[in-house]
Amino acid sequence: MRNLLLKISYIGSEYHGWQVQDNAVTVQQTLQDAIEKVFGKREDVIGCSRTDAGVHANMFCCNFRTEKDIPVEKVANALNGNLPRDISVLSCEEAKPDFHSRYSCKGKEYVYKIWNGKSRNPFTEGLYYNYPYNIDCEKLQNDCNDFIGTYDFKSFCSVKTTVFDTVRTIYKCEIKRNGDEVLITVKGNGFLYNMVRIIVGTLLEISSGKIRSGTVKDIIFECNREKAGFTAPAHGLYLNSVEY
Amino acid sequence: MRNLLLKISYIGSEYHGWQVQDNAVTVQQTLQDAIEKVFGKREDVIGCSRTDAGVHANMFCCNFRTEKDIPVEKVANALNGNLPRDISVLSCEEAKPDFHSRYSCKGKEYVYKIWNGKSRNPFTEGLYYNYPYNIDCEKLQNDCNDFIGTYDFKSFCSVKTTVFDTVRTIYKCEIKRNGDEVLITVKGNGFLYNMVRIIVGTLLEISSGKIRSGTVKDIIFECNREKAGFTAPAHGLYLNSVEY
Repeated sequence: MRNLLLKISYIGSEYHGWQVQDNAVTVQQTLQDAIEKVFGKREDVIGCSRTDAGVHANMFCCNFRTEKDIPVEKVANALNGNLPRDISVLSCEEAKPDFHSRYSCKGKEYVYKIWNGKSRNPFTEGLYYNYPYNIDCEKLQNDCNDFIGTYDFKSFCSVKTTVFDTVRTIYKCEIKRNGDEVLITVKGNGFLYNMVRIIVGTLLEISSGKIRSGTVKDIIFECNREKAGFTAPAHGLYLNSVEY
Repeated sequence: MRNLLLKISYIGSEYHGWQVQDNAVTVQQTLQDAIEKVFGKREDVIGCSRTDAGVHANMFCCNFRTEKDIPVEKVANALNGNLPRDISVLSCEEAKPDFHSRYSCKGKEYVYKIWNGKSRNPFTEGLYYNYPYNIDCEKLQNDCNDFIGTYDFKSFCSVKTTVFDTVRTIYKCEIKRNGDEVLITVKGNGFLYNMVRIIVGTLLEISSGKIRSGTVKDIIFECNREKAGFTAPAHGLYLNSVEY
């Protein structure tokens, strides 16, 4: 039995996240439809994460098992021919038999894209969060640094979570400006439900003065979702890379 | 009578170019609809160029005359509230009474975006021309340089043109790679019908070997559309800036 690893990219706007749901179109289901057409049999595809509705992916990893011997170098094109234009298979490779997109994952990087221009930009609509107020990235980088480390991030987790262990390690939290574009990059060994979006919302509330600068560690130690900022909208968030 | 200059940006995919047409939605018409709503009267908007169907604009200039005294700083937001999300007014300023977006124009810069990746990218669909074959930008820059100067560019003009004088001056023709993205920037005092798209098509045929490198000047001197390359698709082309 082969175990194939697919790297895919998608615009999440039209999907209710990754995972198959009743009565809603998801990326997993759309990909499984394409696999069924190309491989002649429906296979269960394991994703590296359950991205939320509307979240995008520059690179998302998933794997599935098959007995069909289509050469790896032909799989991406064959699947792309059966996928809508907002999902693309970037590559396909043979993985070890025990490889599991989610459990084998050692780290993930997300990038949150903010359009910080005064007027709206048609090219960033639905792909960036429009935030027209002043953001001082240099100042905010100090607060970003306070997220780095191993902590109980319960304050930065949706109360709707079903997860018990809320300890995670953040390796990188960086804010950068290129003109009117502001990018917040967060890398960690794993992420809680809505975690990056709450980190971004908190940073923006620090930027606006609603939350005091220098209090990120205090908010973490409170272990209380109400102490952190708002959940920034899904459409600015991108899964950027996955590490194995 | 005020003369207002608008700088706008738009995704051209859903429009049949700038200019008002019967039985087709255009950018000019959509903008005039918004102006009618905000200013209470339909005004004729003069555009800096007649962009083709499907062409995009990072910055397009247009002007119209009005007697209404809405402050300039309120115009952009008011119009944006009445425009679809693929058109945005970036700014509004008072222009001199004799200012004319097209006749006062001293130069324009276009950028042509090519996605040169092996697999398709959902984020560049409809916004870049997908061209998966090898492009040696450094080598091709030599051919780009041969476009610079004042010439009769009849070979680089659609035969459907109605223009008599086909002499134009090109100030800049540059090809640059950023990863899988290849950008061709062309700046000139004016452009013929399909001119940038034929320049790009010719450069890509030089890249593929169909047209011999070093023959751009010969093609120009032939004054024959058939000697130049294909017309690259509209959806990779952006009006980038306009000079007055």
